[in-house]
Amino acid sequence: MMHIDIKEILEDYDLDKLSIATLSSHSALQILHGAKIEGLNTVLIVKKDRLWFYEQFKHLIDHIVLVNEWHEVVKADVIRMLRAKNAILIPHGSFVEYVGLDRAEKMEVPMFGLRSLLRVEASQKRKMKFLRDAGIKVPKEYDLDDLVPPVIVKFSGAKGGRGYFIANDKEEVKKGIEEAIGKGLVRDMDEVLIQEYVIGVPAYYHFFYSPVLKRLELLGADIRYESNVDGLKRLPHRISSGIEPSFVVVGNIPLVLRESLLLKIMDYGYKFVRHSQKELPPGVIGPFCLESIIKDDCDIIVFEFSGRIVAGTNIYVMGSPYSWLYWNEPMSTGRRIAREIRMAVEKGILDKILT
Amino acid sequence: MMHIDIKEILEDYDLDKLSIATLSSHSALQILHGAKIEGLNTVLIVKKDRLWFYEQFKHLIDHIVLVNEWHEVVKADVIRMLRAKNAILIPHGSFVEYVGLDRAEKMEVPMFGLRSLLRVEASQKRKMKFLRDAGIKVPKEYDLDDLVPPVIVKFSGAKGGRGYFIANDKEEVKKGIEEAIGKGLVRDMDEVLIQEYVIGVPAYYHFFYSPVLKRLELLGADIRYESNVDGLKRLPHRISSGIEPSFVVVGNIPLVLRESLLLKIMDYGYKFVRHSQKELPPGVIGPFCLESIIKDDCDIIVFEFSGRIVAGTNIYVMGSPYSWLYWNEPMSTGRRIAREIRMAVEKGILDKILT
Amino acid sequence: MMHIDIKEILEDYDLDKLSIATLSSHSALQILHGAKIEGLNTVLIVKKDRLWFYEQFKHLIDHIVLVNEWHEVVKADVIRMLRAKNAILIPHGSFVEYVGLDRAEKMEVPMFGLRSLLRVEASQKRKMKFLRDAGIKVPKEYDLDDLVPPVIVKFSGAKGGRGYFIANDKEEVKKGIEEAIGKGLVRDMDEVLIQEYVIGVPAYYHFFYSPVLKRLELLGADIRYESNVDGLKRLPHRISSGIEPSFVVVGNIPLVLRESLLLKIMDYGYKFVRHSQKELPPGVIGPFCLESIIKDDCDIIVFEFSGRIVAGTNIYVMGSPYSWLYWNEPMSTGRRIAREIRMAVEKGILDKILT
Repeated sequence: MMHIDIKEILEDYDLDKLSIATLSSHSALQILHGAKIEGLNTVLIVKKDRLWFYEQFKHLIDHIVLVNEWHEVVKADVIRMLRAKNAILIPHGSFVEYVGLDRAEKMEVPMFGLRSLLRVEASQKRKMKFLRDAGIKVPKEYDLDDLVPPVIVKFSGAKGGRGYFIANDKEEVKKGIEEAIGKGLVRDMDEVLIQEYVIGVPAYYHFFYSPVLKRLELLGADIRYESNVDGLKRLPHRISSGIEPSFVVVGNIPLVLRESLLLKIMDYGYKFVRHSQKELPPGVIGPFCLESIIKDDCDIIVFEFSGRIVAGTNIYVMGSPYSWLYWNEPMSTGRRIAREIRMAVEKGILDKILT
Repeated sequence: MMHIDIKEILEDYDLDKLSIATLSSHSALQILHGAKIEGLNTVLIVKKDRLWFYEQFKHLIDHIVLVNEWHEVVKADVIRMLRAKNAILIPHGSFVEYVGLDRAEKMEVPMFGLRSLLRVEASQKRKMKFLRDAGIKVPKEYDLDDLVPPVIVKFSGAKGGRGYFIANDKEEVKKGIEEAIGKGLVRDMDEVLIQEYVIGVPAYYHFFYSPVLKRLELLGADIRYESNVDGLKRLPHRISSGIEPSFVVVGNIPLVLRESLLLKIMDYGYKFVRHSQKELPPGVIGPFCLESIIKDDCDIIVFEFSGRIVAGTNIYVMGSPYSWLYWNEPMSTGRRIAREIRMAVEKGILDKILT
Repeated sequence: MMHIDIKEILEDYDLDKLSIATLSSHSALQILHGAKIEGLNTVLIVKKDRLWFYEQFKHLIDHIVLVNEWHEVVKADVIRMLRAKNAILIPHGSFVEYVGLDRAEKMEVPMFGLRSLLRVEASQKRKMKFLRDAGIKVPKEYDLDDLVPPVIVKFSGAKGGRGYFIANDKEEVKKGIEEAIGKGLVRDMDEVLIQEYVIGVPAYYHFFYSPVLKRLELLGADIRYESNVDGLKRLPHRISSGIEPSFVVVGNIPLVLRESLLLKIMDYGYKFVRHSQKELPPGVIGPFCLESIIKDDCDIIVFEFSGRIVAGTNIYVMGSPYSWLYWNEPMSTGRRIAREIRMAVEKGILDKILT
């Protein structure tokens, strides 16, 4: 990965006129809203066909950068414009997806978040290894020959809740993989991950690691609302049985957790932070998310992580039951990002929280 | 429909002492709460058997109008009392149900909302036509002979989540309709709507169109909590299979949406506003709701609308993740109504937002 | 039950320096947070292995009492420390579970809440009788020979969502009970409760009875999130059918209710209050919860109660849609407790709200 000299870039920045910049998708509205409350300027990078929508929130946007296609985000003139606005880029779930991993890694604009984590997150197998090495419980991984059903079969690079299926025996797994290869969804078994299907309930934890305060905050939790699976369950069996479930996340529902579970959740969060500090110094910065199944013996198995803000935080624009405990004011993750940047400026350590 | 001369009625109103009036049901508490925060007076029309309950919120109520039966709401002395209090009526989901469509249309009290929309909303077939003509995607409609299963069969005038069933083939549809005719639920096929059962997840969008600001706001979203269907899904199949699902809305659960879906949702909202302005001038005023299924390809199909405040907004008495983006204060739909009225008074255009 | 002389204990208390004390679990963070906002001191009783976690919220804790095992909570030196801090103990769902009923009843520290209700709550059969005698609708109870399926079979003293099963006929019931006796889960039929399985949706209501204001407040409602049952429903039938559902509460989801249902809910709440005043004077104090099924005819059947704060209130650290109606400020149940104590001190009636 190319080295980006943050300190050098920051030398040209006017720290009294910092901007938060982000792409017009995912959690952009929350990020902009939070930045404005904290008194920062905002830059929104907008694809032309979305401009009409984001203009409705022009009170949250100081400056708009228009692009025709997302890959233009990394063009020299866009970079120049962003830097002229003293911009700090906030990556979110659509950033790598839209811009591409290689371009995202090389983009010469200071980023709030751990840039080197993007590549880990992009690979199912590296991601699981990262979690396992951190000491966090993950689902078992199987070979085709030794699997214990039920299993979930995932295709690497799969997007939007469609690249996996649940199977109850080896025959189903084989058939599903052969079909996927036939359709060109995957090339070979190297791109296939066969995981234990953990029985329990899904739960997603929104963390924020603050290098300034040197503490990990739990800013919220949610359940994903997925089409069509969350609709199928409302149908009589005689009708739903003929329909293949899909898992496309279309929304999020608020959740609080049994207080005694918070100990394990925070322990996992700290393990994630410490492992990232060891493996990818300076370690995780700001928001990340652990995505889990809670079993009925209250054990928690993490099957995924996001190394940046997740869309579930959009629930908590006015703060979450957890962020109120820490801050006692309406602190969203978007606002928390801006607050961290402001605190880092005040302490003269802005370069420590950018990559 | 009788013409009600709003300007004439307003001539007798003291605009410094306006009241918000509503019926004691549905979203009344939210509406009253919002009005008080905005400094308006409140009038609650209460049926005697509910008085004890609403008296617990007497800090939200300036004046109570007691009725023995709901149809008394349109009696001359009630109208006189309401006008003496400079009252603006806020219709909600129970208003037409309790008072009756004919009476509601003729009630000579200024109403915040588009009165002529009430009749469209009362008919399944007119409602679907309105949406279709607006350019909003709706479920396919079938004849008995050309249906593609699964379908949902709706009986016009059906209430409370019981007047429809889901069917998997023509025989089931026929049998279900015959039974309904047998039970006197419907008279003939004219009162039956056979619709595509769209596979996906339900989502409800709370809009507010502001004639004062000339903008459409998304004030929230929710999922309905329905008895018994949302309980059946927690039962083992061997037990639930013998029980017919029902869909009686007993509550609402908060929801935020994937940000990229908001573009389609706002587009639908604007299409609704523009079509209402064309077909039923001056067009929709204040709150309305689109009721949809989100498919797993992220397409959105609208199967219903409400031309006034919906009960799902009761979730957001302290504001929603969306209303905070616009207002950055605890803005419920109830409060938003009062705010719109206050702004219209300040601009001298109150008559433009009443019908 | 031993008599605890509250007035005598309070004689040694400095009412200007009152503390809220609670155990480090369940809803402790919310209780501490609420107390701090209201200007009270806080004491947290922490088991050593949890100290690291609660230290992250040290801004909410004025004083920590460390214990090695929970039963030490009632030791003389702990009692002495608590009294030296002018502490009022807030019991929650983990209190009796951790400390034991006998010890909890005798603990000589003033408690906010009706201490004599703890014993009623501990017995399935006494609890149901209490509700029935209060005039609240409860599920039918059956003998093995006269049951009407589906039924839910509960084992007394069962914990954590595992001590019951759903059955569809007498044979299933018999087999399940025999197995439970075989496993030593129950001794005999005296410890078995066979209840009607009510078809509908679960809903939980958070009440607060204020002896100071002499009013009952509805502070919120929730749905429980249970492992594994709420996960099973997302699985294809061919997979879920082989897995026994379990009902371990791991979280809570916010809910608002159809406004017309609030009348029945508040009626039940008042019935509970009045019956407790008659049977267990001075009657319920502060938070309690009714746990129900809402049927599709909008009838409500209560199958359980909690005579103290429930974990579902953790959703509403910043207030609930209902608490905003009463208070128009961010009023959690935890804060409401502290507010009640403060108001009682101001009125010189603190001893009336402690037991």
